[in-house]
Amino acid sequence: MFSIFKQEARGLATSPASSSTQDLGTNGGEGLDSNSSEKTDKEPVNVYGLGDPAAKFSQMSPYLSSRGSIIKCFRDAAEEGYKAYHLDEYDEDKNPKGIINFGTSENKLCFDLLSSRLNQRDMHHIEPPMLQYPNWKGHMWLRDEVAQFLSYYCKAPVPLKPENVVVVNGCASLFSALATVLCDPGEAFLISSPYYGAITQHVYLYGNVRLVYAHLDSRVTGMDSRPFQLTVKKLEIALLGAKSEGINVKGLVLINPQNPLGDIYSQEQLQEYLEFAKRHELHVIVDEVYMLSVFDESAMFQSVLGMDSLPDPQRTHVIWGTSKDFGISGFRFGTLYTENQDVANAVASLGCLHGICGTVQYQMAQLLRDRDWINQVYLSENHARLRAAHAYITEELETLNIPFLRTKAGFFIWIDLRKYLCTDTFEEEFSLWHRFLDHKVLLSCGKAFECKEPGWFRLVFSDKIPRLRLGIQRIREVLEKEPQVAKTACPASPWRRAVS
Amino acid sequence: MFSIFKQEARGLATSPASSSTQDLGTNGGEGLDSNSSEKTDKEPVNVYGLGDPAAKFSQMSPYLSSRGSIIKCFRDAAEEGYKAYHLDEYDEDKNPKGIINFGTSENKLCFDLLSSRLNQRDMHHIEPPMLQYPNWKGHMWLRDEVAQFLSYYCKAPVPLKPENVVVVNGCASLFSALATVLCDPGEAFLISSPYYGAITQHVYLYGNVRLVYAHLDSRVTGMDSRPFQLTVKKLEIALLGAKSEGINVKGLVLINPQNPLGDIYSQEQLQEYLEFAKRHELHVIVDEVYMLSVFDESAMFQSVLGMDSLPDPQRTHVIWGTSKDFGISGFRFGTLYTENQDVANAVASLGCLHGICGTVQYQMAQLLRDRDWINQVYLSENHARLRAAHAYITEELETLNIPFLRTKAGFFIWIDLRKYLCTDTFEEEFSLWHRFLDHKVLLSCGKAFECKEPGWFRLVFSDKIPRLRLGIQRIREVLEKEPQVAKTACPASPWRRAVS
Repeated sequence: MFSIFKQEARGLATSPASSSTQDLGTNGGEGLDSNSSEKTDKEPVNVYGLGDPAAKFSQMSPYLSSRGSIIKCFRDAAEEGYKAYHLDEYDEDKNPKGIINFGTSENKLCFDLLSSRLNQRDMHHIEPPMLQYPNWKGHMWLRDEVAQFLSYYCKAPVPLKPENVVVVNGCASLFSALATVLCDPGEAFLISSPYYGAITQHVYLYGNVRLVYAHLDSRVTGMDSRPFQLTVKKLEIALLGAKSEGINVKGLVLINPQNPLGDIYSQEQLQEYLEFAKRHELHVIVDEVYMLSVFDESAMFQSVLGMDSLPDPQRTHVIWGTSKDFGISGFRFGTLYTENQDVANAVASLGCLHGICGTVQYQMAQLLRDRDWINQVYLSENHARLRAAHAYITEELETLNIPFLRTKAGFFIWIDLRKYLCTDTFEEEFSLWHRFLDHKVLLSCGKAFECKEPGWFRLVFSDKIPRLRLGIQRIREVLEKEPQVAKTACPASPWRRAVS
Repeated sequence: MFSIFKQEARGLATSPASSSTQDLGTNGGEGLDSNSSEKTDKEPVNVYGLGDPAAKFSQMSPYLSSRGSIIKCFRDAAEEGYKAYHLDEYDEDKNPKGIINFGTSENKLCFDLLSSRLNQRDMHHIEPPMLQYPNWKGHMWLRDEVAQFLSYYCKAPVPLKPENVVVVNGCASLFSALATVLCDPGEAFLISSPYYGAITQHVYLYGNVRLVYAHLDSRVTGMDSRPFQLTVKKLEIALLGAKSEGINVKGLVLINPQNPLGDIYSQEQLQEYLEFAKRHELHVIVDEVYMLSVFDESAMFQSVLGMDSLPDPQRTHVIWGTSKDFGISGFRFGTLYTENQDVANAVASLGCLHGICGTVQYQMAQLLRDRDWINQVYLSENHARLRAAHAYITEELETLNIPFLRTKAGFFIWIDLRKYLCTDTFEEEFSLWHRFLDHKVLLSCGKAFECKEPGWFRLVFSDKIPRLRLGIQRIREVLEKEPQVAKTACPASPWRRAVS
């Protein structure tokens, strides 16, 4: 059933040009030992995968439905690192030996700016309509502001329309709603891996939608110009693979800037991905939740909403929210922009389950309309702080001789700790992750992003320098005890997830 | 497959004692014409039904999944009355000919009290944890307050525990989450009808869970002491009926005080319902969202959380929220109390899709802890206003000779307009509903609550007297044109829903 695809995939994975890793941060491939390079020749990485979230869980509750038991296990499994963290959070004064969190992708650099803005008097306004049931697409005055905000920051060629906007309590809810209204149970979205792993549960928990992975890897072949490069060829292969297994793929998920890689897609790349989707009648969900977190002034971000024309506008749906770009993930605010009114109305039908407090809708409208504060106070200061934190952490990584992907956007760095694994397995990756946790520093391991190569980690750097310094020190202490290169057998650990 | 049940159901429905309607408000059966009494003998009302939300919809979108098309249709269908209302809302000054809303169950009498309280300085507090990802069960300090609040107002025999509390963005989300974690797709909850019709979509949209109806009706038989009385016998028959059709019923939904009937269950009744559920290993979801809206001082409300012991505590799950009792449905705040940690954790796993803004969590904690304001300012004033509005509307109904169920709780009255239907059909009921709407007064018709007898309507009275006066005047004008009793054929209208 899968033979044709397997041959094609294997052919690509073992091509002679696929054996080196290049351009890993400023220290490029220097940090990569030859052993790991050889290994990629011997053990080709699969270029396609199919997620099966339920397969990981088997513990049934006598009180829950079958799906309820699986849903509960998602929480149990995902929470291990965070349970430990929340029981023992680092605090400079109260708990200096507590856990440093390099795992959660939050911007902790700008609470002062946001608290100050959200405490201004214009935010404290209440009218009866805010206390009553809203339109489940969001209050019209808020959708007006969102449309104007996105028109401006996405550089839309013509003003975006408020009737194409739906606001709900966070981007997770948008993934859940879109999965449910675009796919029937068991159908799938295509996504390149590594990717922000929480999407797995957002589309699966309610929607029972799976993800088909186009696996990217660190090897640079003749067709790629950098590690983990997303190409249409890889998407084509994964789609073909899914079809050969009878999986109905209904859409493509693009994350731009990408999480965890930090890649920013060029206009040409975006055009190619969107045209690929159009050829196969795939919806495209474009997650631009880091679009204002491009901190390097040399980088150019291209929003899908800023393109002169879209190949398939009725199947193009753009997600944005305030969690990352305004550092307020606790506010639960996400926006969908789609010209497709069937999609907008179907998502709005689920909106009664994803509603936002009316006064918060008012505050978000006030925030988004305050172009002066955003441009002159917030973004410039936020980007400067992100740049400083990024510069600090990359210098430290270079000192530690840890390879990484150089990024210009987002809150994280994708680091290569493969040389510290005893064997190239996810059990070993988990074991290393656990040693970091035991040494009071929480990271996210590559498996949590469905990375196909064991040994990659995501390190979140958007935090104050003293905390970064302490976290890096603890990482160093763990790694100094690790047997580099020596790939001897180590005791295996049960694999678990750690991502947020 | 269904023959045994059908005989039993029919036997009950046609019993000699089942032909009269009594105790309908202060004017009792006076408003009932003899023709409609006779009819119940001739056309027995089914005592059991099975909801099939998808059957009502057939319009497929080329862009949506099968379920997505159905989900979208829910919005299209439910919105007719509300679309008209929102395009033409009554305003004393700006739009005096606009639509008066007697349809949405909101308390519009206390915006002044709530706005004033929510604007106090203690509400405007921000700390970094409120801006960050929360625990998806809700912040611990909020769950502490909820546990203390429920312990006090539900008169819990021992203090309720914060670890048994989950908070999400509204009670709709709790129905969705509970349906999903307690039932697999196609399974069902048992509920007595008429019931708050939105529950249909809350359990179906994501959960694909159906409702089995134990139909109550206005006839008072030997076993009943009042119209629409819920008895264990009726629940038993409906459960048997569902089983005979191969439907797997996983839980019972109780609404107390009941919406739309306004019934308040006694401790003895509650005990009977809970023991029935235990006998059949059914979960019980108890919706107490109107528990503090018991405005008649002669009434006693018994919370399930205030019972000395529960027959099956691991399968008893209580829902409450601020939408009704504090008149802030726009705040989206609902709480679940369950001793079952599997259920609490499974619901919390879905909590990432139902999150509440951190600052709103803080405001809700401040509100719930302010026992002085709640007891000495809010509740006494709120109840006085509800009593006055209720007294006004019931006097008007009596003057109009419209029978109704007398209630002591909630925001609505269940009124009997059967004598104004040309024929006893839901098409006729819809037609009357539409004539009200055309005459600028929005009501909810019985079909929206899955009432089995055509001709009942829910009238929401929790509004200012001038609006009530104008709405009642418009109702009178419509009814004066109606041919009472004369059951001649009228042109049929396509049936649609109108509920909120």
